[in-house]
Amino acid sequence: MKKKEDRLFLVTNDDGIRARGLEALIEVVRPFGEVFVIAPEEGQSGMSHAITVKHPIRIRKVSEEEGLVRYSSNGTPVDCVKLALHKLLKRKPDMILSGINHGSNSSTSIIYSGTMAAAIEGCMNEIPSIGFSLLDYSPDAKFGSVVKYVEIILRRALEKGITEDTCLNVNFPVNSCHKIKGIRICRQNKGMWKEEFDHRTDPQNRDYYWLTGEFHNLEPEAPDTDEWALHHNYVSIVPVHVDLTSYRALDQLRKWDIESG
Amino acid sequence: MKKKEDRLFLVTNDDGIRARGLEALIEVVRPFGEVFVIAPEEGQSGMSHAITVKHPIRIRKVSEEEGLVRYSSNGTPVDCVKLALHKLLKRKPDMILSGINHGSNSSTSIIYSGTMAAAIEGCMNEIPSIGFSLLDYSPDAKFGSVVKYVEIILRRALEKGITEDTCLNVNFPVNSCHKIKGIRICRQNKGMWKEEFDHRTDPQNRDYYWLTGEFHNLEPEAPDTDEWALHHNYVSIVPVHVDLTSYRALDQLRKWDIESG
Repeated sequence: MKKKEDRLFLVTNDDGIRARGLEALIEVVRPFGEVFVIAPEEGQSGMSHAITVKHPIRIRKVSEEEGLVRYSSNGTPVDCVKLALHKLLKRKPDMILSGINHGSNSSTSIIYSGTMAAAIEGCMNEIPSIGFSLLDYSPDAKFGSVVKYVEIILRRALEKGITEDTCLNVNFPVNSCHKIKGIRICRQNKGMWKEEFDHRTDPQNRDYYWLTGEFHNLEPEAPDTDEWALHHNYVSIVPVHVDLTSYRALDQLRKWDIESG
Repeated sequence: MKKKEDRLFLVTNDDGIRARGLEALIEVVRPFGEVFVIAPEEGQSGMSHAITVKHPIRIRKVSEEEGLVRYSSNGTPVDCVKLALHKLLKRKPDMILSGINHGSNSSTSIIYSGTMAAAIEGCMNEIPSIGFSLLDYSPDAKFGSVVKYVEIILRRALEKGITEDTCLNVNFPVNSCHKIKGIRICRQNKGMWKEEFDHRTDPQNRDYYWLTGEFHNLEPEAPDTDEWALHHNYVSIVPVHVDLTSYRALDQLRKWDIESG
């Protein structure tokens, strides 16, 4: 394992440079090495793996002190990671940490998540990466009860390493009445968002819509899923990869008898 | 199999309502059933699975004729699918078709793709979905040589069905000198974008950056991948699912001995 003074962490999020969850993550990471932060200037929730190609990207140095530099950017979380890796950092970071997100990224919510997209981008660049999320959407969310687990997971990841082509999706439960029970290694739960649109009319009498929705768990009784773990007050860790191939479906597709040439 | 008059297709893209590729797709689909189009007002390339939560979404009816309605929206491709499914359509479509994209969505490019995000959103809503992309980024790309294959694949998908929780990522090669050789069922190639940033200074002497990049194929000799098929002038079909769990990594993670409670 590398010495602390040789380690470089890249830290980002999708809630923006001023988010409490980002500060909580920075505080946990600092004792482990040098920290380079680049996060969106404003919140970028729901941006998924979007990249900015239609307008110029700008960056701003926010602060600099011993072992900690902070930048912000008008880009997406994935833009932030790309900027750091390919423009701002002189060497490859040892690990990319994203979060702590204000809100859940468990189950299929991962697909929409800017926080997890940043971790996935790290993984695509062959850098061990972890995304952390707390099941509390409030800007005032309290991270005090979960930083202990961030540290446990970070320490273990540095010791043991993360499987190649994989990053980790870590979610923390929120339950003010009960203490967190422990940590579970899980698979991604099967679930979907049942969307609704709040239909309104503006002062010029034109229609507009706000996206709203409710998560439906399609396998609430499956104890090996992240949703089950979180619902039962465990921290969930799902190993995530970027190969979207459904190997199960390959066989069915071959029966289409459509291949030729 | 349903009769033509009972079938409803939802068609979208990420290049916008005026894109040639969208028109090419509409023309192929029309003989198979009723077509409902909703596409972004402007191009939304690189938007991945982004959803709009910070500003209101608006829609506009573009045209209406027998068996074909066109809407546009200021939202992302995924917003378009959500609007259609949860607000605009009176019944669930039989299939969602996205594209034909101007540019490749093979290998890991799928992660950044708005075209494929729309198909994945369909799959998450338990609707058979296919994304089509042509390896030509030009707005004037010629789709004449590939519409035949869109029709073959569409016909087979209607006959045979698509495996549950799976959508299809179809890419077409571009090679003006040689005819397309046929169709291959493939897995997602392992590759990555090596990014660079074009650093410029604006008239007010402020720095800004444009994202550029080059794709690196990490397994150019693997004949079961989409990249190989496309490079050898085949149409590639990759079955794609939304479970990002790396089952291979679950075992390694369990050896961390971090589970408790």
